[in-house]
Amino acid sequence: MSGTFSEELFLTNKTGSSLYHTYAEHMPIIDYHCHLQPQEMYENQEFEDLGEMWLRGDHYKWRAMRCFGIDEKYITGDSSYYEKYMAFASVLPRMIGNPIYIWCALELKRYFDIDEPVTAANAQEIYDRTKALIREKHMTRRWCMEHSNVELVSTTEDPTDNLEYHKKMQQDPSMKTRVISAFRPDRAMFLEEADFADYMKLLGESAGMEVGSFARMLDALEARLVFFRQIGTTVSDDGVPYFKWEDYSLPEIEAIWKKAFSGGPLTEKECDQYRSAFLFEMGRRYCRNGFVMQLHIGTYLNANTAKVAAIGKSTGFDCTDNRSSVYSVGQLLDALTRAGELPKTILYPLDGTKCENWAVLAAGFCEGGVKAKVQLGAPWWFNDQAYGLQRQFEACANLYPVSLSVGMLTDSRSFISYPRHELYRRVLCDYLGRLVERGEYFGREEDLKGIIEDVCYNNVKEFFGFI
Amino acid sequence: MSGTFSEELFLTNKTGSSLYHTYAEHMPIIDYHCHLQPQEMYENQEFEDLGEMWLRGDHYKWRAMRCFGIDEKYITGDSSYYEKYMAFASVLPRMIGNPIYIWCALELKRYFDIDEPVTAANAQEIYDRTKALIREKHMTRRWCMEHSNVELVSTTEDPTDNLEYHKKMQQDPSMKTRVISAFRPDRAMFLEEADFADYMKLLGESAGMEVGSFARMLDALEARLVFFRQIGTTVSDDGVPYFKWEDYSLPEIEAIWKKAFSGGPLTEKECDQYRSAFLFEMGRRYCRNGFVMQLHIGTYLNANTAKVAAIGKSTGFDCTDNRSSVYSVGQLLDALTRAGELPKTILYPLDGTKCENWAVLAAGFCEGGVKAKVQLGAPWWFNDQAYGLQRQFEACANLYPVSLSVGMLTDSRSFISYPRHELYRRVLCDYLGRLVERGEYFGREEDLKGIIEDVCYNNVKEFFGFI
Amino acid sequence: MSGTFSEELFLTNKTGSSLYHTYAEHMPIIDYHCHLQPQEMYENQEFEDLGEMWLRGDHYKWRAMRCFGIDEKYITGDSSYYEKYMAFASVLPRMIGNPIYIWCALELKRYFDIDEPVTAANAQEIYDRTKALIREKHMTRRWCMEHSNVELVSTTEDPTDNLEYHKKMQQDPSMKTRVISAFRPDRAMFLEEADFADYMKLLGESAGMEVGSFARMLDALEARLVFFRQIGTTVSDDGVPYFKWEDYSLPEIEAIWKKAFSGGPLTEKECDQYRSAFLFEMGRRYCRNGFVMQLHIGTYLNANTAKVAAIGKSTGFDCTDNRSSVYSVGQLLDALTRAGELPKTILYPLDGTKCENWAVLAAGFCEGGVKAKVQLGAPWWFNDQAYGLQRQFEACANLYPVSLSVGMLTDSRSFISYPRHELYRRVLCDYLGRLVERGEYFGREEDLKGIIEDVCYNNVKEFFGFI
Repeated sequence: MSGTFSEELFLTNKTGSSLYHTYAEHMPIIDYHCHLQPQEMYENQEFEDLGEMWLRGDHYKWRAMRCFGIDEKYITGDSSYYEKYMAFASVLPRMIGNPIYIWCALELKRYFDIDEPVTAANAQEIYDRTKALIREKHMTRRWCMEHSNVELVSTTEDPTDNLEYHKKMQQDPSMKTRVISAFRPDRAMFLEEADFADYMKLLGESAGMEVGSFARMLDALEARLVFFRQIGTTVSDDGVPYFKWEDYSLPEIEAIWKKAFSGGPLTEKECDQYRSAFLFEMGRRYCRNGFVMQLHIGTYLNANTAKVAAIGKSTGFDCTDNRSSVYSVGQLLDALTRAGELPKTILYPLDGTKCENWAVLAAGFCEGGVKAKVQLGAPWWFNDQAYGLQRQFEACANLYPVSLSVGMLTDSRSFISYPRHELYRRVLCDYLGRLVERGEYFGREEDLKGIIEDVCYNNVKEFFGFI
Repeated sequence: MSGTFSEELFLTNKTGSSLYHTYAEHMPIIDYHCHLQPQEMYENQEFEDLGEMWLRGDHYKWRAMRCFGIDEKYITGDSSYYEKYMAFASVLPRMIGNPIYIWCALELKRYFDIDEPVTAANAQEIYDRTKALIREKHMTRRWCMEHSNVELVSTTEDPTDNLEYHKKMQQDPSMKTRVISAFRPDRAMFLEEADFADYMKLLGESAGMEVGSFARMLDALEARLVFFRQIGTTVSDDGVPYFKWEDYSLPEIEAIWKKAFSGGPLTEKECDQYRSAFLFEMGRRYCRNGFVMQLHIGTYLNANTAKVAAIGKSTGFDCTDNRSSVYSVGQLLDALTRAGELPKTILYPLDGTKCENWAVLAAGFCEGGVKAKVQLGAPWWFNDQAYGLQRQFEACANLYPVSLSVGMLTDSRSFISYPRHELYRRVLCDYLGRLVERGEYFGREEDLKGIIEDVCYNNVKEFFGFI
Repeated sequence: MSGTFSEELFLTNKTGSSLYHTYAEHMPIIDYHCHLQPQEMYENQEFEDLGEMWLRGDHYKWRAMRCFGIDEKYITGDSSYYEKYMAFASVLPRMIGNPIYIWCALELKRYFDIDEPVTAANAQEIYDRTKALIREKHMTRRWCMEHSNVELVSTTEDPTDNLEYHKKMQQDPSMKTRVISAFRPDRAMFLEEADFADYMKLLGESAGMEVGSFARMLDALEARLVFFRQIGTTVSDDGVPYFKWEDYSLPEIEAIWKKAFSGGPLTEKECDQYRSAFLFEMGRRYCRNGFVMQLHIGTYLNANTAKVAAIGKSTGFDCTDNRSSVYSVGQLLDALTRAGELPKTILYPLDGTKCENWAVLAAGFCEGGVKAKVQLGAPWWFNDQAYGLQRQFEACANLYPVSLSVGMLTDSRSFISYPRHELYRRVLCDYLGRLVERGEYFGREEDLKGIIEDVCYNNVKEFFGFI
């Protein structure tokens, strides 16, 4: 047992190690999808301690702590970050095989140059040491981003958001990382929610128009799309937790919209029709406005409703299932292709066990003139660890050229999650190196260099137009 | 080709080998779920021969023999065990990659100290040698259990069972293994079966009450739960071959129950409503009585109805499919959580390809104060081989801390299947060792020791309260 | 980086390498399912260039080229094969991890003895060199087959086909490869297609009878089955892209058939009932006529309808999903078993992520007297690469003896795709060797030899009766 962090982490073959250290390691990061708070980024406070850095808002760790039976007061309760850190540290050595273990190790190494793992024996000492370093180096939100060589991040905001802090940051000369925001119109898609009518009013206000119909709602959303475009955004963020394509006519959709607006009861079929129409019409608008459509597919949100009611949304009670079918998303892509308005699209299936079927679907909708027009996104949420990455590389490269991928994103609420890009790059290079060493690739080194630099950096800039 | 059994089986790295031989190899076994017959265990006869040991009741081997086109008379027919053994031995060398091959090898090694594989050439000789050893050592049912260092086994019985042999064994001072029985109320869940009304009468008799309603049925089942508790049982065994959560009201359920009781035709929706109500109400009762709920999910029983009619249930004609959804089981767990009566629960999905989705679900229902309140069970039936174990370790440790697992069970009808615990431990240690050697874990050896001992032995005692 | 093709490709362990080179490498090929054109085979023209060899009809490569955004004119458009080759060659070095990369490498090596990979730098030179070799060696269609030691191929034809070229080839003494044709009655199954009535007339003409009912349609199909049998065919080819078993009565089916025949609208349930009846009745006829039933399950054909309309069927716009359930196919097999007319059956699930569930199903319908009566087919289409093969070997050998497999098929439209058999054999031997080296198999070398020779050659001859 080595007992210390190794720079050869995940690098199991010589070629892969060489590829990583030569080409991938030092590429800048473009984090094109995350859940950071722009206000927090703008205000740029120094972190209180490692407890805040690790445990504020991180539902991955909260879930794991609940598995260990830790009392909720040390998770989302009113204990101090120190107490939460100590509770978390007490179980961290038992998280073998879990990405939290390796993420923590990478974060300690990259931000604090700490080589040893957290154990029961050194938890206090590591707490003290990191706290001193935070103070000494003034580790703020932006410090973390700059320290990680992050060129651009994209948060994700509701269409009604005024992007106040994004604008402020773009005007702030001290800001070294470019910050844009994905356009996330989920609240307009969930017409069965109790606050749908309220949201429509909010949307109308933000767009400066009356929203009294489905058609006008689309106008308002497109106005906001243009508004988001002004800060450099070229990307949507659509969550399709459960999606079943259902044919519809526009008069039907208008009637459904009005029923929802007036709080009337909706059938399952009506909701499915509405969502089909909504995604189709938004897709057309993404296409017209030069946006990439990001579809996040297969979440089973708020599975544990009692806990969500008590603790809140996005606190660790979401799951995944297969109520969104490949076939339904295929019908959406097909309708957009028939309309001649299929935008560039990234599919993010949350059920990683089926990533192959989605890769096949993506390839079936690519077409001449646009590189990787429809592609599979990086493994996310429950899949963004070495296992999920390896599976996607090994399985999906057979079905869709991996060299075209726009690479990794953090999808994170944490300012120190950038080592996940490092993890991705290590696993990528390890995979490529293994292919070379097994004789499955015997091209020129310059081709490998090109592939790695593209996946780590060039593809994302080109695909989203982040020039 | 070595030609002989190796003690390094499945151990592909030095760390894993060392962990196995140092910590895992000699831990006692708690087999918390199996299908052994208590009467057989009590009467404790010596085995006739290796044919009986290997082929009596073992539908794994029967299926494989049918794949090879062997005549049914050598499988479940009236041939002698010797003839069946010879038929089986003739194809065993062709079972490369199949767990039967390695289980047989482990069983020959551990019970007979035979190092070489069965081949066409030595089948007769091995038959003779093992038969002599059975006589010489008086290999009885209990001998096998004692020889394997088995502390406790749990059979599984119907709520109407009088547990006669369990009680006799608990009073028998010569009995070295503790034997309890899981509580398996499946017959009360399958209300569409022709014998439902008969079974209700049987249940009423066993509980000493009239069962004339759903509510009274639950009372009777709870009375039997208490009865099972008396022999030390703290565990249920619920099979949910196909389960779709369907909302219901209790009056609806009472009406459905009465229709079933009087043999009336039931709609699919009514069956789904009944099963939803049944599992919810049983879950509450497990919780109140300190039972762990074991949900066996996704069997496709009796797929080949003609063969089941001819040969019988549980003779190798069951399959698996995905008619039980993560979402439906999620709704059950959610309803129990909302009621504040979620018992400790183990999910055993039979479709191993989806184990990740179930691990995610389990984590979403854990909560403070109870370690691993809802957890993923060990891979079973079609998945309890090295491949299924490795997949579950590698995929699911990312989603749920593997260190919290209650570990392996045999789920077996055979008295010599305990080497499956050995197989599990080897694969576990190999997996952990690989993480260490790849730099993905670099904690202290004492943490690894703790993790291994917990998964192999301590967790199961603590979780089920087998003190 | 080696820079040249290695004869140890995919062979990662010494035992596997030795097994491959000793037993598998030189076995003849029986390609029991492909999509070659019999007329093309009969006329036997020399290839124009590597562009024609690689890109004519190969929708795998077309899909990949579209992913790279190459203009359709270089894919299926009217560019020359030279131009298409150059467009393809420009992206080939970026196809790391994709089977196209390794198939191309194997094809260059086996047909042209070229060791180096295609790169931007040598694309023209390789074009010229291969063109010269094609001329020099007169590389025709049959040359490719003979050069690859192909004993038999089975194309696949509609029941109405007159098998003209098959007959001519069987009478041609210069023909060194035996050519039969699978019987593919898909057009009779898709009763909802606009041309169903026309097709029924065509079928009636080919069978020399009036087809005015479901029963007569079956008679006509059986007559054609007998006709196909005359050229030595013993194999069907049934595509079940979406299949849901739905109970039916024969009068219902006759009514549905008549409605379809007169172009009336059909409900989804009626289509499902019809397909259930169709597959059941065809299965009986396969059984009676000594045919093996091949079920190709889970295609999601023509997903991109706009492109199919513009470019055509089978040009790269098909996908896969899970609308065909294990349970529905199980009900079909069950009904045939109950009828005592279950033919030998091969299941080819296109969703490779679920291959285990299908292997379990296959084993559940095996029975005495016939070796591997129902079996899992080789991974196909989206799965016939090293990854898909390894998964099927590793996962499914646990559930169904791999030694009983009828082995590989190309399923290809290309005359130079026979190296896919080589790829299969390499991966098979690598897998077996790994089992040996890990101690999971320690039988005699002659058993391994027998297993390899059976899977590569003997099983297919015996199973299909290709004597």
